[in-house]
Amino acid sequence: MSRIDGRTADQLRPVTIQRGWSKHAEGSVLISFGDTKVFCTASVTEGVPRWRKGSGEGWVTAEYSMLPRSTNTRGDRESVRGKIGGRTHEISRLIGRSLRAVIDYKALGENTIVLDCDVLQADGGTRTAAITGAYVALADAITWAQGKKLVKHGRQPLIGTVSAVSVGIVDGVPLLDLCYEEDVRAETDMNVVCTGDGRFVEVQGTAEAQPFARDELNSLLDLAVAGCTSLDAAQREALATTL
Amino acid sequence: MSRIDGRTADQLRPVTIQRGWSKHAEGSVLISFGDTKVFCTASVTEGVPRWRKGSGEGWVTAEYSMLPRSTNTRGDRESVRGKIGGRTHEISRLIGRSLRAVIDYKALGENTIVLDCDVLQADGGTRTAAITGAYVALADAITWAQGKKLVKHGRQPLIGTVSAVSVGIVDGVPLLDLCYEEDVRAETDMNVVCTGDGRFVEVQGTAEAQPFARDELNSLLDLAVAGCTSLDAAQREALATTL
Amino acid sequence: MSRIDGRTADQLRPVTIQRGWSKHAEGSVLISFGDTKVFCTASVTEGVPRWRKGSGEGWVTAEYSMLPRSTNTRGDRESVRGKIGGRTHEISRLIGRSLRAVIDYKALGENTIVLDCDVLQADGGTRTAAITGAYVALADAITWAQGKKLVKHGRQPLIGTVSAVSVGIVDGVPLLDLCYEEDVRAETDMNVVCTGDGRFVEVQGTAEAQPFARDELNSLLDLAVAGCTSLDAAQREALATTL
Amino acid sequence: MSRIDGRTADQLRPVTIQRGWSKHAEGSVLISFGDTKVFCTASVTEGVPRWRKGSGEGWVTAEYSMLPRSTNTRGDRESVRGKIGGRTHEISRLIGRSLRAVIDYKALGENTIVLDCDVLQADGGTRTAAITGAYVALADAITWAQGKKLVKHGRQPLIGTVSAVSVGIVDGVPLLDLCYEEDVRAETDMNVVCTGDGRFVEVQGTAEAQPFARDELNSLLDLAVAGCTSLDAAQREALATTL
Amino acid sequence: MSRIDGRTADQLRPVTIQRGWSKHAEGSVLISFGDTKVFCTASVTEGVPRWRKGSGEGWVTAEYSMLPRSTNTRGDRESVRGKIGGRTHEISRLIGRSLRAVIDYKALGENTIVLDCDVLQADGGTRTAAITGAYVALADAITWAQGKKLVKHGRQPLIGTVSAVSVGIVDGVPLLDLCYEEDVRAETDMNVVCTGDGRFVEVQGTAEAQPFARDELNSLLDLAVAGCTSLDAAQREALATTL
Amino acid sequence: MSRIDGRTADQLRPVTIQRGWSKHAEGSVLISFGDTKVFCTASVTEGVPRWRKGSGEGWVTAEYSMLPRSTNTRGDRESVRGKIGGRTHEISRLIGRSLRAVIDYKALGENTIVLDCDVLQADGGTRTAAITGAYVALADAITWAQGKKLVKHGRQPLIGTVSAVSVGIVDGVPLLDLCYEEDVRAETDMNVVCTGDGRFVEVQGTAEAQPFARDELNSLLDLAVAGCTSLDAAQREALATTL
Repeated sequence: MSRIDGRTADQLRPVTIQRGWSKHAEGSVLISFGDTKVFCTASVTEGVPRWRKGSGEGWVTAEYSMLPRSTNTRGDRESVRGKIGGRTHEISRLIGRSLRAVIDYKALGENTIVLDCDVLQADGGTRTAAITGAYVALADAITWAQGKKLVKHGRQPLIGTVSAVSVGIVDGVPLLDLCYEEDVRAETDMNVVCTGDGRFVEVQGTAEAQPFARDELNSLLDLAVAGCTSLDAAQREALATTL
Repeated sequence: MSRIDGRTADQLRPVTIQRGWSKHAEGSVLISFGDTKVFCTASVTEGVPRWRKGSGEGWVTAEYSMLPRSTNTRGDRESVRGKIGGRTHEISRLIGRSLRAVIDYKALGENTIVLDCDVLQADGGTRTAAITGAYVALADAITWAQGKKLVKHGRQPLIGTVSAVSVGIVDGVPLLDLCYEEDVRAETDMNVVCTGDGRFVEVQGTAEAQPFARDELNSLLDLAVAGCTSLDAAQREALATTL
Repeated sequence: MSRIDGRTADQLRPVTIQRGWSKHAEGSVLISFGDTKVFCTASVTEGVPRWRKGSGEGWVTAEYSMLPRSTNTRGDRESVRGKIGGRTHEISRLIGRSLRAVIDYKALGENTIVLDCDVLQADGGTRTAAITGAYVALADAITWAQGKKLVKHGRQPLIGTVSAVSVGIVDGVPLLDLCYEEDVRAETDMNVVCTGDGRFVEVQGTAEAQPFARDELNSLLDLAVAGCTSLDAAQREALATTL
Repeated sequence: MSRIDGRTADQLRPVTIQRGWSKHAEGSVLISFGDTKVFCTASVTEGVPRWRKGSGEGWVTAEYSMLPRSTNTRGDRESVRGKIGGRTHEISRLIGRSLRAVIDYKALGENTIVLDCDVLQADGGTRTAAITGAYVALADAITWAQGKKLVKHGRQPLIGTVSAVSVGIVDGVPLLDLCYEEDVRAETDMNVVCTGDGRFVEVQGTAEAQPFARDELNSLLDLAVAGCTSLDAAQREALATTL
Repeated sequence: MSRIDGRTADQLRPVTIQRGWSKHAEGSVLISFGDTKVFCTASVTEGVPRWRKGSGEGWVTAEYSMLPRSTNTRGDRESVRGKIGGRTHEISRLIGRSLRAVIDYKALGENTIVLDCDVLQADGGTRTAAITGAYVALADAITWAQGKKLVKHGRQPLIGTVSAVSVGIVDGVPLLDLCYEEDVRAETDMNVVCTGDGRFVEVQGTAEAQPFARDELNSLLDLAVAGCTSLDAAQREALATTL
Repeated sequence: MSRIDGRTADQLRPVTIQRGWSKHAEGSVLISFGDTKVFCTASVTEGVPRWRKGSGEGWVTAEYSMLPRSTNTRGDRESVRGKIGGRTHEISRLIGRSLRAVIDYKALGENTIVLDCDVLQADGGTRTAAITGAYVALADAITWAQGKKLVKHGRQPLIGTVSAVSVGIVDGVPLLDLCYEEDVRAETDMNVVCTGDGRFVEVQGTAEAQPFARDELNSLLDLAVAGCTSLDAAQREALATTL
């Protein structure tokens, strides 16, 4: 079967990762997974939220948002509606948890890093692109903090790598990295966050149309692990150059 | 290893399901998973939200909430804070999706069923108890709607059964149905929603302390499927009696 | 005249008061006035609101809420609407004032007790059941605080007893403890909060259909004082047993 | 005993009622009870809220608010805080109920009258001044609506008169129409809304410092009824002139 | 051309400035520009907002609001809607900036003055009347603060005078001080804030119907400067008497 | 005097206008004024807001927002704070008014165009860049609507061109197109919106440090008109190519 955009079932869309996309942020990345484009910034501030003060440990959190016309039809701004929707909350929390999985809080010291992931254009997989891009922005921000001596010498706050990809079953076939058109037709939709060594940080599978069997789950996980391996390589390559 | 409360690794806490706990709601259940108690009501109203009008299809949605003192220390009311937190949003959405997985919208017709899951006492696993209890309330509400001829004859809106359980890895050991004390110590935490025939509706695994490997994931899924089989039996038993 | 549910004009509905209904709260009660069921918890925390710091005096406050399907038709959650309604505000304030009337702030010391009164099922008189139940939860919470030495020895923070009941004029006849069906038909509706010695803490009378005369007011007060005397006895009996 | 401002226990503060204080509103009054000044407008619109459409009946409602510097120290604006406080809600509801007590909804027809009571300067008794002034604004608005033929001929929508006054026990002495300084010192505080024929629309008594006995309640009611009789005369006098 | 109300093109409406209109506020003014009436209070508090603490400098800010029935048809209260509208925000900010232009923060010391401008009746020009009146209230509040020794001796915090007026082009003719009826018909509308010496604090011109040319702008500025000179005189006269 | 970035007083920063920056929006532009980058989209929908229905006229409105890390230090998201700040409101309104000045509502027909201007990176002049970029997006959106026959033949809805620039006085010298560092040091700050034929749509001048004189105002207007002429040329050039 050939996919809508001609890819094979186990093929990622073209991935680009541009670092240094903001002159203000300590880390910043414009990441694209095909037509999905997410602008990720990492902001470092000294100090931690009140409930963590005096612990000697840092904090990492994330906020996700879609620009109103990042989608095919314009959505209301959450600031205008005066409240954040459930989907936004859910994704912001997912991004934050995913990145905290590769942070050594003690090594970070009492500093806070906020990752802002703003979707400029959406075509499926915005949350997984956000996690993958935010990781690179986070890495740059930590390097910056080390340069500024905000982070103590000798212990690395970043203790792993993390990337994410969506997988799903469309017309009975497991596919990697769904675009929007595939996503709306998927019977099952799964987002998987992996570390570079192939272990899982998050697995979120949802039966959209009908329940899925254990072997379907296994096929999806195989695709996702392979996809994250490629994304991990793209992150490393992006970080290999001097900013 | 013996668990905090003396259970074996693959043992559920005592489950009780009391139907008819409200004189007003079309379906109502007080469910307990050990010390976790959730009050689930199903409210049927004719008509559907605006975006679904004229489709001939029904809708099922859910709202989850914790009473302020359902936990060990009192939490602020979300109504007083004026906004719903991310965790509440996330769980409400999970419950809604889980129950919609066993609904035939066409058969339901243009009726809406709202499931309210209010946690009276929390001791871990509130969202899985909520899903398991809400299914029973939903079944009663549909029976009620059939009795009232709101739902057309000949086609059953409820096309499957659904239950949910938490699993996690504590001190390296995969455990079924975590209580709060286990939950806070878990390295990995997973919520699994299954249909009665052992397929998956939702799989949500999170690495709390460190990433988890594929074989750990498999052990957790095995435990969860077995747990849901027992919960499915408990639901059937509860529904077997005349209200 | 016989009432809807067969009671005489001066008869309360059956009252039950179950203490220790929550394993977390310092005091907790499930109270029922007939089909009206309110879950009351008392939460003790050290410290007082900012405006009271350094005064050496404690604080007692209350929050009332109805579960969405506690009523015959489902109501919107105030957390979802993002604001608290006037009726909720009004009742929360009434409960707080009523209980503060029997508190010696100095004896309580700089501790705060929050009373949460959540209506699980409504059939008229929810606010008066809430006050009557919250008193018992408050008494248990103070005993707990004394056991924990949070409250100083030698001076009792609880300086009286308080209970509440509704009265009203239905078809020209003054009735005690209105159920919902009577309440909607009442020409005059009054909520009365009394101390155990028959004095008034709150008197709130409202002409629903037409103004009421002084002698009608007097009849209603007579009924209410008698009702509170019975409720006071029920509270004492509930508190007489060891938890 | 002589009071702070030299009045006797049963004496009202000077009352002024200026009609026609706004060129826009259908009825408008600046009322003062001593230094308490409330600006009351009555706005007539054709049509009723959705839940009342097609009933053939009208609706009357009220909104109360204090200007931020109507009090001795500046209070935050509720619009800036983004929510209405409990006290504001409570008083708005009280004013609305009080005025609806003298309205024949059928005679009003499907028209809505909103009473806005904005406190320009506060010195105790703002809610009772608001009710007393709003009645006059309401009367003018109804006359206007009759002139415009919005209200049908032959049946008078205004079926009584209503005024309100505060009473309280200060240093053991029952006093009429408390000013702010007396109000804060009162052991018991009561707001009484009466019709012109001496019957009650609302009685709201609160024990501020200690519970009050039945005979104290009776003394307060006597004072209040006498006070409302005087206020009723002041309203009639104000309405006697041609605007 | 004669204007709606018989004025010449360069004529202000009658201006009245009544000081001491509140017994509570440190400065208070009821100002009218024809039928536009704004109640302005100045509230002095010791201390400054957090971001200014320790600077030795004071702060002046403003809040503008319209009573719901200050206009021809009743508007919703912003407190009830739960948010402040864009126009209100814009005008509050304009008033604050305008008055800060004549304040020496160092001389004011760490004190805050809040100007509340509440429109009691609107007939065009509410923001300019608010600025003009608020200046007088501010002057009185500073005098009060000097009397209380809150402000240090020797240096005057008020370093200029400020007033404001609207101008606009109606049917091609530049007019001073538009009333509401002129305002809605204006092709161009401008609000100008001047100091007493004829310099500009704010110039805000908006093409309502069609863009305006440089010479039209000049004519409007000429009218506005002349208008502010008259308003400056009215302010001085009002402040000349002893309160 | 040479400026911070080497420009002469009457020189704009480099301006770039990239059309077609979004695959979803009917018109989209990434505009930069030096380091200030604003992403502008124009969304066309059939129909108009309720208050305009049946008029046969269209509507154009705008929403401005800054990404949290578009500035040097991270700002809170307005969606998270639950309310829109005054500055955001003010700028959104300014953009909307500016673009409506060149729209023929009748020719547009009952269609709505929403302009979203999201600041990706801020370095002064974000509102003027937003207006200048939004004009180009609006032009493309109207061309799109004409292609789709949403807009009737024969009458052009876009009846002029509009661009905007900031000017200010820094150290006594009038400067064109202030960057952030100049903006914070400016004594007077002005935003000017012009049509292509050199007339004014908006003039908003603010004395930041001290009032400004008439001749200073004139110098600033001269600079602004010249700047807008250059921006007008840049817009034409951008629109000259086929998308």
